[in-house]
Amino acid sequence: MERTGSRVTHEGTQVSVRIDEFRYEDGSTSQREVVSHPGAVAIVAHDERRLLMVRQPREAVGEEKLLELPAGKLEQGESPLECAKRELVEEVGLEAAQWRPLKRIYSSPGFTDEEVHLFVATELTEVDPEPGEGERIEIVEVALDELEETIGRCRDAKSLVGLLLFAELRRR
Amino acid sequence: MERTGSRVTHEGTQVSVRIDEFRYEDGSTSQREVVSHPGAVAIVAHDERRLLMVRQPREAVGEEKLLELPAGKLEQGESPLECAKRELVEEVGLEAAQWRPLKRIYSSPGFTDEEVHLFVATELTEVDPEPGEGERIEIVEVALDELEETIGRCRDAKSLVGLLLFAELRRR
Repeated sequence: MERTGSRVTHEGTQVSVRIDEFRYEDGSTSQREVVSHPGAVAIVAHDERRLLMVRQPREAVGEEKLLELPAGKLEQGESPLECAKRELVEEVGLEAAQWRPLKRIYSSPGFTDEEVHLFVATELTEVDPEPGEGERIEIVEVALDELEETIGRCRDAKSLVGLLLFAELRRR
Repeated sequence: MERTGSRVTHEGTQVSVRIDEFRYEDGSTSQREVVSHPGAVAIVAHDERRLLMVRQPREAVGEEKLLELPAGKLEQGESPLECAKRELVEEVGLEAAQWRPLKRIYSSPGFTDEEVHLFVATELTEVDPEPGEGERIEIVEVALDELEETIGRCRDAKSLVGLLLFAELRRR
């Protein structure tokens, strides 16, 4: 499979849409409409007794306080790890001395190229949170013995993958 | 939080983009760009020894054979369960006598309203698969004792949530 062409069909304020053309090994071709995304990170930041999550309005899905892992989009030129460090400070006011990659996932590979880099962050130190302009973020401390209930309440795909993989790691 | 307006800014072949306006309880307002999606389903279809997955090209993320649960988009007027039954036949050639809802998740609530309805399907009967036109789907049987390795290989968010929750159910 080879991408043989690409043209942008919509430049929005946050989202752009393109049509890519592909040729397959059997000689056939196809076009695919793709929502371009810069990629994102999400972080399982924890110590021995708790992990940190956030609640925020997610207008796209009509939720006023969606429960999620700290997360955010990659900025121009930023590596996933740099982005994760920045978002952890901005959203929950934490720095971490230890960072481990947990998983890289595709959010919805049928229509968008968004890839989310999941990290586990430990050895936490508190700093001042620096919410971006217009962000309405509430920090939520989750006791580790409430991990299973929290998974039950969570409906965000990237956060569920992070929490479920973290729960698996803890059982080992 | 109340949606006070909505206008479509792009009608693509598969994807449309809109700008929604919101008013919050504190009187402030915001605009959000949202990729409209009809919603989707994904299915953990299993018996005592195996579950069924698929591999298919996912051009948006540059993968020739992405490993996923059987899944698909809701068609006009279709309920999630009807969609799941249709997709299970089309993609892997199975009917199931037992269907249980597993979880409803948001794929990427920062920019799209896509919601995925996950189901567990059991008491399986083989029928002829009916792949849609242009679909290049390979059926993959996963032995249940290879579930953990399969989770390690899988990179699709909805499929990971389905597999990880199914692994939790099996441990109970």
